Amino acid sequence: MRAVDLIRKKRDSGEHSREEIDFLIGGYTRGDIPDYQMAAWLMAVWLRGMNGPESAALTEAMLYSGEVVDLSEIPGKKVDKHSTGGVGDNTSLVLAPIVAAGGVTVPMISGRGLGHTGGTLDKLEAIPGFNIALNLKEFRHVLSECGMALIGQTAEIAPADKKIYALRDATSTVENVSLICASIMSKKMAEGIDALVLDVKTGSGAFMQKEEDAVRLAKAMVETGHRMGKRCVALVTDMGQPLGRMAGHSSEVTEAIDILKGKGPKDLRQLSVELSAWMFYLGERTPSVNEGRRLAEAMIASGQALEKFRECIALQGGDERVTDDASLLPQARSRVDVTAASPGFIVDTHCQDFGIALAMLGGGREKKEDPVDHGVSLEFHRRIGDRVAAGEKLVTIHYNSEAKLAEAKEMIAAGFVFGETAPRARPLIRQVLGG
Amino acid sequence: MRAVDLIRKKRDSGEHSREEIDFLIGGYTRGDIPDYQMAAWLMAVWLRGMNGPESAALTEAMLYSGEVVDLSEIPGKKVDKHSTGGVGDNTSLVLAPIVAAGGVTVPMISGRGLGHTGGTLDKLEAIPGFNIALNLKEFRHVLSECGMALIGQTAEIAPADKKIYALRDATSTVENVSLICASIMSKKMAEGIDALVLDVKTGSGAFMQKEEDAVRLAKAMVETGHRMGKRCVALVTDMGQPLGRMAGHSSEVTEAIDILKGKGPKDLRQLSVELSAWMFYLGERTPSVNEGRRLAEAMIASGQALEKFRECIALQGGDERVTDDASLLPQARSRVDVTAASPGFIVDTHCQDFGIALAMLGGGREKKEDPVDHGVSLEFHRRIGDRVAAGEKLVTIHYNSEAKLAEAKEMIAAGFVFGETAPRARPLIRQVLGG
Repeated sequence: MRAVDLIRKKRDSGEHSREEIDFLIGGYTRGDIPDYQMAAWLMAVWLRGMNGPESAALTEAMLYSGEVVDLSEIPGKKVDKHSTGGVGDNTSLVLAPIVAAGGVTVPMISGRGLGHTGGTLDKLEAIPGFNIALNLKEFRHVLSECGMALIGQTAEIAPADKKIYALRDATSTVENVSLICASIMSKKMAEGIDALVLDVKTGSGAFMQKEEDAVRLAKAMVETGHRMGKRCVALVTDMGQPLGRMAGHSSEVTEAIDILKGKGPKDLRQLSVELSAWMFYLGERTPSVNEGRRLAEAMIASGQALEKFRECIALQGGDERVTDDASLLPQARSRVDVTAASPGFIVDTHCQDFGIALAMLGGGREKKEDPVDHGVSLEFHRRIGDRVAAGEKLVTIHYNSEAKLAEAKEMIAAGFVFGETAPRARPLIRQVLGG
Repeated sequence: MRAVDLIRKKRDSGEHSREEIDFLIGGYTRGDIPDYQMAAWLMAVWLRGMNGPESAALTEAMLYSGEVVDLSEIPGKKVDKHSTGGVGDNTSLVLAPIVAAGGVTVPMISGRGLGHTGGTLDKLEAIPGFNIALNLKEFRHVLSECGMALIGQTAEIAPADKKIYALRDATSTVENVSLICASIMSKKMAEGIDALVLDVKTGSGAFMQKEEDAVRLAKAMVETGHRMGKRCVALVTDMGQPLGRMAGHSSEVTEAIDILKGKGPKDLRQLSVELSAWMFYLGERTPSVNEGRRLAEAMIASGQALEKFRECIALQGGDERVTDDASLLPQARSRVDVTAASPGFIVDTHCQDFGIALAMLGGGREKKEDPVDHGVSLEFHRRIGDRVAAGEKLVTIHYNSEAKLAEAKEMIAAGFVFGETAPRARPLIRQVLGG
């Protein structure tokens, strides 16, 4: 088998066998196949596509390029959630404690934020002392102690994905359903889970802005999960505006804790409960999603979910007192308001721009190496559908540095789209696929 | 400007500006743009294509990656011919002396054979002492002395093409009209010519086997030539069977000399005269192609063309006595005949297989580094349209080594397609484009 022939095959719309995909991914991971051949193949895949069996084979080849965590000594089902990323999306911090408290193990390996999106790891690192860099042995230990663990990707997990992702980034071959699907699913399947709930975002703050693209990706991931023998569901959810009231690391930790205390914004609570309910159902903890919802609500009401979060923070070296005292988290020193220039209904937002503005203020990163300011945040006072008066506060910017403040402020102000009549209500959860 | 954005642009069917193409080709040649980005871009170009202005810009960018030979001190027009390659195609050795003898300068930079095709350089090296590795100064000297020079590509000529071609070969991005066009035309334009005659082969022994593909390539090259301000014509010619009676280095030199002596096979003479006629016409030596034909015939009849070839061989260090004594060329020691198994009309040939068989016997190369046996040849006794009896000689193999002889013999025998009725006559010159 030769890489050059496989490149030609995909270029000419051929379908790869499992052996061919294993040859390519294995050879590339070992360094036998050079970057330039993989780059040409990736572009051919981008333009010609892959079918279901090819996507599943690619996912498996990437999965088995590294270690698959063995959680067999931990009793019960293990279920995780993955989100394609957005602005203010801190559901992981809410649902992991809920689901673990409810008796389903949550082995969560997360990523960092990049561009306009936030990352769970960065949020966790706002908690003083919290160690996301556990090795797989420590990961298993925390999981068996408290039923949840929140760590970053290790070198043992899907090394092929790391190498291929860097190449895709440099060769404009990122935005392809099969490649995205394989990248996400290979890492998630390496967690040793029984089931997976996918939160595929759509709208102006999402990676896949058009709902049809989000649905296509959702379907591909669910199909791949099923082909690999896992229970899998995808919720296509709205990211046309930030989730919750806050965007920024410390503030999102605080908001997640608020939800676990039975408080906090309605949309964040709704989505967290919904995703938790599906995790309970797929983890065979409840016989229906509806009973899953009730169990999730009960875990919040009883304080068990909050207690679980506290336990996990302590086990991972963090200061669990943050659950009672938000001032222990890094804070912003200054604040400034963004107000409405004229009256009207908020009919839409350029949600991605809020994420970019936050990153400009230090609360996100342009490149992987950039440091992050955990204290910076955007506080959203108004949502789509709200009627606002001229001069009314839309957003409060909590910042530490004036560099780029004016630019960020302008970007945020321009991020609200006003109309004369109230927009149609948009459901937070748009579609549920698989299950 | 960033390479990653230009890759995305071509991936999404965008049209590149001249500046963008200069950035990519210049950056790659200098080593600023890595192989993997160029590979992804080449695959995007392969799948999305390029339009006329892009092809011309690519050709120019590759042309100006190196030196353009300055022939301004040599008076008169400079015209070259390029063939896309075939089996037994030795017209260069015939027409260069004819055209130089007729008063148009022929600065010919040629290539080596690869796969089933022969190369002019290899044929010239059959002549004892002939030096194809002149530098550009020596090239200019020979040209000004005798009006023709036959050399190989130098490091100064289109270095971008050399680098890009190697990458295309490894990434299955060879067979694309725009890329082939730019590769050929950048090298030809570097010769400092005023006009170019293209011989684009079609049929079973050609690179572009289907006539429609050959026509598409021909049109692209003519258009590119015109965009670059050169007179340019393409003759699409038949390569459904070997040109002339001989395939093999020494034997093709001998056959070329035969033509220059007014002898030799009709098809080779016809094509050589036709290409010469166009060179005279484009070089403004004759007011019409028809007068160009007459001038070409006159150069043969008067012996001036043969004398010109002798002069050039001597100037390039070769033994010019080969024009009178073919035995001075490397010869094969043994011969064996391939005969017809049953009677019938020859209706077609798998011409490429003849080239491959010749290469297997040592008369060609699989890889660029392989040595070549100049003495080996195939002598074709019969052509398409001929009626043959069972047991009649089709081909005589002149060989030096028995290794792979049986396999080559079988391949040659299977290379003739027989039928019960005479095939329709196929014109040697199928189409003329541009002019």
